[in-house]
Amino acid sequence: MNIAVLCSGNGSNLQAIIDKVLDGYIPAKIALVVSDNKSAFALERAKKAGVETLVLDPGDFDGREAFDREVIKNLRKKKIGLVVLAGYMRLLSGHFIKEYKDKIVNIHPALLPSFKGTHGIRDALEHGVKVTGPTVHFVDEKLDNGAIILQKAVEVKDADTEESLLGRVHKEEHKIYPEAIKLFVEGRLKIVGRKVKVKS
Amino acid sequence: MNIAVLCSGNGSNLQAIIDKVLDGYIPAKIALVVSDNKSAFALERAKKAGVETLVLDPGDFDGREAFDREVIKNLRKKKIGLVVLAGYMRLLSGHFIKEYKDKIVNIHPALLPSFKGTHGIRDALEHGVKVTGPTVHFVDEKLDNGAIILQKAVEVKDADTEESLLGRVHKEEHKIYPEAIKLFVEGRLKIVGRKVKVKS
Repeated sequence: MNIAVLCSGNGSNLQAIIDKVLDGYIPAKIALVVSDNKSAFALERAKKAGVETLVLDPGDFDGREAFDREVIKNLRKKKIGLVVLAGYMRLLSGHFIKEYKDKIVNIHPALLPSFKGTHGIRDALEHGVKVTGPTVHFVDEKLDNGAIILQKAVEVKDADTEESLLGRVHKEEHKIYPEAIKLFVEGRLKIVGRKVKVKS
Repeated sequence: MNIAVLCSGNGSNLQAIIDKVLDGYIPAKIALVVSDNKSAFALERAKKAGVETLVLDPGDFDGREAFDREVIKNLRKKKIGLVVLAGYMRLLSGHFIKEYKDKIVNIHPALLPSFKGTHGIRDALEHGVKVTGPTVHFVDEKLDNGAIILQKAVEVKDADTEESLLGRVHKEEHKIYPEAIKLFVEGRLKIVGRKVKVKS
């Protein structure tokens, strides 16, 4: 299976996925890394791994759907079977989500449905929870709402700062995101309503 | 310190607390068990442990506040320093909460702020989360909203039913509720805004 990874920033999850493809854990090829930000360090990671990259500048397109149509055109060329969002800061258009229905995954740094949105770490910390952790989920039309594939608990410590907690959450993200992708690629994920069951 | 436990039903958390008082883990006395339900099995557990009980029938009172005033009158007599809700199915009046500000604790069978309300297990299961677990928190004016003392992650399995998941969550409740009460009684909990810090 060919997978595409969409990134906007540092790409530490992309790196974890690259590593797990290279060592054979994920039986798939990263056929394309797409970024909406030409300065994303994720692009350097892709190039270093010999992965093809595509940079599209949102300023060159007339709105979100036009941008997404260009992305989709490129994904189609590569016969992409799974779209992986890894720190991709753009909301996908309904058109994109329909085109790749049940084939788009995202990772969120909180235990959904708690702390949706762009500040999952900070919001958890400010709320005073004692347990948080990342969620890998399918992407549907609503923000951070799709069926949940994997979650992993991370203990919050009294002394935690955003940075220290983020570090521990990221560490778990780098384990469960490759695991979820492996399960998808192997055809072992079954969506039943809101639930995702794992076939053994 | 004298503590009171308010129950409406089976009282399995009451039992865990009784056991941990009897073995010396919680350095406090359960001075009173209050129930709004004369058939609550919790009352049997209290009697068996030699703990004084009080049954009040909501039907005998003119509204929630009148009922709570009677409860408070009895708690005062016993010089109660901590009110523990353990399957207590009544909402406390604002008067009660003010009277025992930062001295009322509750346990909820989901990782708050997710799945507030009376169906924490079912709602988590239906939402398809992979991690849930109990929360011990202080009680404030809003439902299941107060500052969080302890939480414990419980893995949700594909094959889980409400019953099987409830069983595993209860098992953790019976550990963290006594632990939170011990910390309170020892004066080791410090509320800072929404956060509860544990002094060592």
